[in-house]
Amino acid sequence: MYWQAKRPAFLFGMKLLEEKIKTHGKVIGTEVLKVDSFLNHQVDVGLLCEMGKDVYNHFADCAVNKILTVEASGIGYACLAAQFFGCNVVFAKKAKAVNQSADVYKTTVHSFTHGNDYTATVDKKYLSQGDRVLIMDDFLARGEAANGLLELCRQAGATVVGIAIAIEKGFQPGGENLRAQGYDVYSQAIVAAMSEDGVEFKQ
Amino acid sequence: MYWQAKRPAFLFGMKLLEEKIKTHGKVIGTEVLKVDSFLNHQVDVGLLCEMGKDVYNHFADCAVNKILTVEASGIGYACLAAQFFGCNVVFAKKAKAVNQSADVYKTTVHSFTHGNDYTATVDKKYLSQGDRVLIMDDFLARGEAANGLLELCRQAGATVVGIAIAIEKGFQPGGENLRAQGYDVYSQAIVAAMSEDGVEFKQ
Repeated sequence: MYWQAKRPAFLFGMKLLEEKIKTHGKVIGTEVLKVDSFLNHQVDVGLLCEMGKDVYNHFADCAVNKILTVEASGIGYACLAAQFFGCNVVFAKKAKAVNQSADVYKTTVHSFTHGNDYTATVDKKYLSQGDRVLIMDDFLARGEAANGLLELCRQAGATVVGIAIAIEKGFQPGGENLRAQGYDVYSQAIVAAMSEDGVEFKQ
Repeated sequence: MYWQAKRPAFLFGMKLLEEKIKTHGKVIGTEVLKVDSFLNHQVDVGLLCEMGKDVYNHFADCAVNKILTVEASGIGYACLAAQFFGCNVVFAKKAKAVNQSADVYKTTVHSFTHGNDYTATVDKKYLSQGDRVLIMDDFLARGEAANGLLELCRQAGATVVGIAIAIEKGFQPGGENLRAQGYDVYSQAIVAAMSEDGVEFKQ
């Protein structure tokens, strides 16, 4: 593949993501880890391809037939991973477009990033009982978005095979709560602690 | 590649997209073409890979180093195409997140789909004078979003090498206006006319 040729061979797996967070992430205060230079504003497509392959390796035996994420920053991550699974992506919508069907699954999600609540919706045609769903999102902190996506799957009667996350804030309770519920939460980088001096990862 | 094996060999190039619009698109009234089963809610990742490759073939000689789109439905399309160019994607943001830099290029865009205006912003760090930008979006109708992205490039002093669109509504003036300004607008399917009886394409 194109991207492999450009990557140093010793940075395999998700060390690549940790390195990128260390060199390109920016911690603001105690809560905000800005990664908009490669993940959620500018997108490093080569890195996300490698991350997608790694997600596939983790969930390869789970017969995933659909990846569910939420707009906007989960979409690139999900689409690039979906190539390896050979499946479609469904992204939950946050705003009600005038041409959106009323026949939707929906739930309310609180966004700490945007400081508001939004309604996440998925058209009933695109999520159903036969689906084996992998949930993907760029961040996991308190678990609001992931729980919202789980609720949409519950409403549809779909099976959730697991949850793949680019960056988990391990010092916030979202990941622990989801694992306690029995979900296979695969976070590609888990931040153990962070400050303006740097980021430490859970190994 | 994985996807090629699953596609009928006789549907090459963007006949594939036209076929998909014919079989899975839904016309509502005279203005709305719903393609949320494969493009902007559920995403047919295999189809979008083929579309990305076709976009690459068109712009391969243009030394593109960045693809610019706008959240949310352009992101998957742009990321899958970017793999072929070996470049990054930047997606303009529609809402002001609390952790977004104030140091942004911005412009107001009217959305006919959502019936409102929004501010599209790009952090000044991610668009600059040296960039050779390919603008991509899922739809082109009146050209509001494309003109907004062009304006952001103008503010940054970036060079726009062209505009790639999945579906152009050829009966609305956006494409014609952009071409009259001298832009290379590559629309993968151009709808010449549509009604609830079906869709006709410009050949």
